[in-house]
Amino acid sequence: MCRWLAYSGTPILLDSILYLPKHSLIDQSLHAKLGVETTNGDGFGVGWYGAHTDTPAVVRDIGPAWSNRNLREIAGHVRSPLFFAHIRASTGSSVQETNCHPFRHGRWMWMHNGAIEGFDRIRRDLALAVDPELFLSIEGSTDSELMFYLALTFGLEQDPPGAVARMAGLVERVGRERGVEYPLQMTVAVTDGQRLWAFRYSTRKVSRSLFYSTRVETLRSLHPDVAFLREVSDETRLIVSEPLGDLPGAWNEIPEGRYGIVQPEGDVMRHFTPRAV
Amino acid sequence: MCRWLAYSGTPILLDSILYLPKHSLIDQSLHAKLGVETTNGDGFGVGWYGAHTDTPAVVRDIGPAWSNRNLREIAGHVRSPLFFAHIRASTGSSVQETNCHPFRHGRWMWMHNGAIEGFDRIRRDLALAVDPELFLSIEGSTDSELMFYLALTFGLEQDPPGAVARMAGLVERVGRERGVEYPLQMTVAVTDGQRLWAFRYSTRKVSRSLFYSTRVETLRSLHPDVAFLREVSDETRLIVSEPLGDLPGAWNEIPEGRYGIVQPEGDVMRHFTPRAV
Amino acid sequence: MCRWLAYSGTPILLDSILYLPKHSLIDQSLHAKLGVETTNGDGFGVGWYGAHTDTPAVVRDIGPAWSNRNLREIAGHVRSPLFFAHIRASTGSSVQETNCHPFRHGRWMWMHNGAIEGFDRIRRDLALAVDPELFLSIEGSTDSELMFYLALTFGLEQDPPGAVARMAGLVERVGRERGVEYPLQMTVAVTDGQRLWAFRYSTRKVSRSLFYSTRVETLRSLHPDVAFLREVSDETRLIVSEPLGDLPGAWNEIPEGRYGIVQPEGDVMRHFTPRAV
Amino acid sequence: MCRWLAYSGTPILLDSILYLPKHSLIDQSLHAKLGVETTNGDGFGVGWYGAHTDTPAVVRDIGPAWSNRNLREIAGHVRSPLFFAHIRASTGSSVQETNCHPFRHGRWMWMHNGAIEGFDRIRRDLALAVDPELFLSIEGSTDSELMFYLALTFGLEQDPPGAVARMAGLVERVGRERGVEYPLQMTVAVTDGQRLWAFRYSTRKVSRSLFYSTRVETLRSLHPDVAFLREVSDETRLIVSEPLGDLPGAWNEIPEGRYGIVQPEGDVMRHFTPRAV
Repeated sequence: MCRWLAYSGTPILLDSILYLPKHSLIDQSLHAKLGVETTNGDGFGVGWYGAHTDTPAVVRDIGPAWSNRNLREIAGHVRSPLFFAHIRASTGSSVQETNCHPFRHGRWMWMHNGAIEGFDRIRRDLALAVDPELFLSIEGSTDSELMFYLALTFGLEQDPPGAVARMAGLVERVGRERGVEYPLQMTVAVTDGQRLWAFRYSTRKVSRSLFYSTRVETLRSLHPDVAFLREVSDETRLIVSEPLGDLPGAWNEIPEGRYGIVQPEGDVMRHFTPRAV
Repeated sequence: MCRWLAYSGTPILLDSILYLPKHSLIDQSLHAKLGVETTNGDGFGVGWYGAHTDTPAVVRDIGPAWSNRNLREIAGHVRSPLFFAHIRASTGSSVQETNCHPFRHGRWMWMHNGAIEGFDRIRRDLALAVDPELFLSIEGSTDSELMFYLALTFGLEQDPPGAVARMAGLVERVGRERGVEYPLQMTVAVTDGQRLWAFRYSTRKVSRSLFYSTRVETLRSLHPDVAFLREVSDETRLIVSEPLGDLPGAWNEIPEGRYGIVQPEGDVMRHFTPRAV
Repeated sequence: MCRWLAYSGTPILLDSILYLPKHSLIDQSLHAKLGVETTNGDGFGVGWYGAHTDTPAVVRDIGPAWSNRNLREIAGHVRSPLFFAHIRASTGSSVQETNCHPFRHGRWMWMHNGAIEGFDRIRRDLALAVDPELFLSIEGSTDSELMFYLALTFGLEQDPPGAVARMAGLVERVGRERGVEYPLQMTVAVTDGQRLWAFRYSTRKVSRSLFYSTRVETLRSLHPDVAFLREVSDETRLIVSEPLGDLPGAWNEIPEGRYGIVQPEGDVMRHFTPRAV
Repeated sequence: MCRWLAYSGTPILLDSILYLPKHSLIDQSLHAKLGVETTNGDGFGVGWYGAHTDTPAVVRDIGPAWSNRNLREIAGHVRSPLFFAHIRASTGSSVQETNCHPFRHGRWMWMHNGAIEGFDRIRRDLALAVDPELFLSIEGSTDSELMFYLALTFGLEQDPPGAVARMAGLVERVGRERGVEYPLQMTVAVTDGQRLWAFRYSTRKVSRSLFYSTRVETLRSLHPDVAFLREVSDETRLIVSEPLGDLPGAWNEIPEGRYGIVQPEGDVMRHFTPRAV
């Protein structure tokens, strides 16, 4: 189990989201409430888009986030309009930087909470399905990174929902061929630096939790006293594994089998179904 | 808060104690039950005496014990008649190897669970009280290491209970001079490779938990079916922050304000009182 | 021996200086030319001032700079008008983050190349001379950090050259009292985020190398073809342990026993002499 | 480029070989003489067989060996009759534990110095040739580990020289199909805990250096004054990337295209030729 958050909106210091909220992601690294495990101490990562390049910076480390000074330094000095953060609880693969999220390919970032059930049995078949050119960029040994490269193989850069649907379809088909009843369990966030897609899906229809923040203008009228809400634009949106605090009305669960798009032309939510490949 | 264990007896593979018990120390690194915090992920250390040298080996690292492969390798291949293991939950000082327990000086090892209350206010005074020659060997910034060097200054190598009592007396006197009502909270284990001393004391008389294992011959008659008990000698003894399993009759709490000595001529338990210095 | 650089001028991406030059600081971590050792692999640090806060961000790690991915990520995405970078070759103290430069206190940063000769003999006396309030902020075990806290004790924030002169005077006096003939060897950079001071001094008058870059307008007329020079302002200045490339006319040695100030009102260089304390 | 050593013979403390010799492996981590690079600071590993289990212990870490305290502790307290040690200079793949040598499979260990030329172009084809069951055990991203798993696929556990010859044959065939003229460059050591095989081969016939130690009884008569030689048995043998000291007559180069076997029934050296697969 892992925890993640994705932020899009008014450029802010990362620590406004990573450290300051009452039940912040860093707090969740020690005390997660909604996950299978309460501790997420097997590495972390943060990826952000800045003003100077299209490609995001990705900083990852293998220790727990809660005691990492460099993460705190970066969070206290870097401002970004779109960033990902992830804390990891390994389900078996090595604790090493190349297994930490977010993963990056060009200007795309990807992070995941969940698992491919029976991964050992199907890992090789999935690896073979990755485009040979892309295969060379795989650095770690997680199911999550492999899911990213499968999605890239299936056209993530052209049609993210379609590519993720095909990736999910492949995982389910290959898994079932190898005798795995419920192969896929995922919440995934992916971005190109402009738009942000978040998916919640599992074969068993019992997916890991996922929440999105209420529209800022609605929140502002609910909570006229919360200063933070006056500083961020209406387009600001957070998607999180679990709520960062207990502000009434602030958090909405993304239902089973859905994906959301956070984008300048208006956010939308749609049904998600794996596609046969 | 930290967790520790000290083993003395029949030479065994470290993992018999560190990994195999149901509620082993490694399990406690994720799920401690009796501590202030459930997670002890801010570094760990293991120190053992072997056949080839009087000085113990001390291996420490800054990540969580639960995911450390090198600890598992060492534990699975090193056999020792006397070893210490410690998992750390930092109460503020840096997560770095020189702040991990056990600390070593010559053939002596020391580890601690607890804290000096108001340490910031009295750290400098305590540092000044350390013998100038010994001062140079202090490498880290913890209260625990400083307590060790104070005890060494007060004659730990000649009279361990007396030296620890003077150390405790100094901490309490200086603490009170600086306005700290309850300066000391400790369970401490110390050894010279032959004998093992374990102290439980706090100024407030509400010390962290500490347990010792029942005599092996008694346990054997209680549990004739437990293979492990047939393999270890009668002199085998474990002292732990919290029980490693739930074998009925196996664990006894060390009362408040006591210290025990595990030694070839028979184990004893005595009252502990800080001594004015 | 260590290597360091200090940059002040037009805001640029850190990697323009840290990675791109032919004999960049990162290259020097593997292949230093002018130092006692060619390898500087015992940790590194970078500290930068940004637009959003007066306090610099300081990121440090214990591995070699040459293979550190996070440093490369940060360098490729962070822009700053004033930053320090340091690569360490330990002269004995532990390889840990709290021993890596730059050190920070409030909005001040400090870094050092050199050593206090016979540090073991005089460390305690020097520690005692640190202001008790400041003493609590010392986290590591290096001579370099202690020099910083002595300078702070002697008024660094009011009069940097005077405070550094007193620190040097104290080190020399105490060293000689303890029988050290040549106690001090240093090149030091210190900044408050506005101005930058660089010192070159050793008791023996054989100090480690230190260079400053030629005025940009002069360089521009010498090398009209170098694009980089057209992009940076006239006020841009680099101070380095060894030249970053071999551009003719670009580098000037700071003579023995001098310090330079890089500041908006015009850079100056002056004689440096320790002051008795 | 990397450096490695393999020891077989009288059980000794690891530091007798790793730290004590004048030009020890740890010294080579900073100052290698015969390699492409003088610094081998991208991780290290040591693997040893003990008295208590058939499977070797393998301890690896990502920092430089020269400053690693845990390596020194282990080396000073662990005694073994057969051990491998390796210091790494990455040729591109990540600096992470799963890329550090030696690699282990069951009771077998493998380490490598060299590279597969054009690895990016042929990595996928080689990965596909690994037995699907074995494929799951691959944890890192190096050519070296992949070579190990190919050799295992080709029957390393039954016929080490034959399996390594087939592995080399495959690498050369696939490499040439992809336009790589000289695909393989290697010195390899492999052991099952009883016997030790060492290979020196490169397609170009210009292999990395490899040496074996002279028979102990011969050395003893040459150097009757060297105490160490009186303590080790006649069967003791070292194989090293470069000599550990300058004892005259102690080191012999393994010629191009050869492999040696260190074994109880007498050491032998034979020609090595890749085998078509």
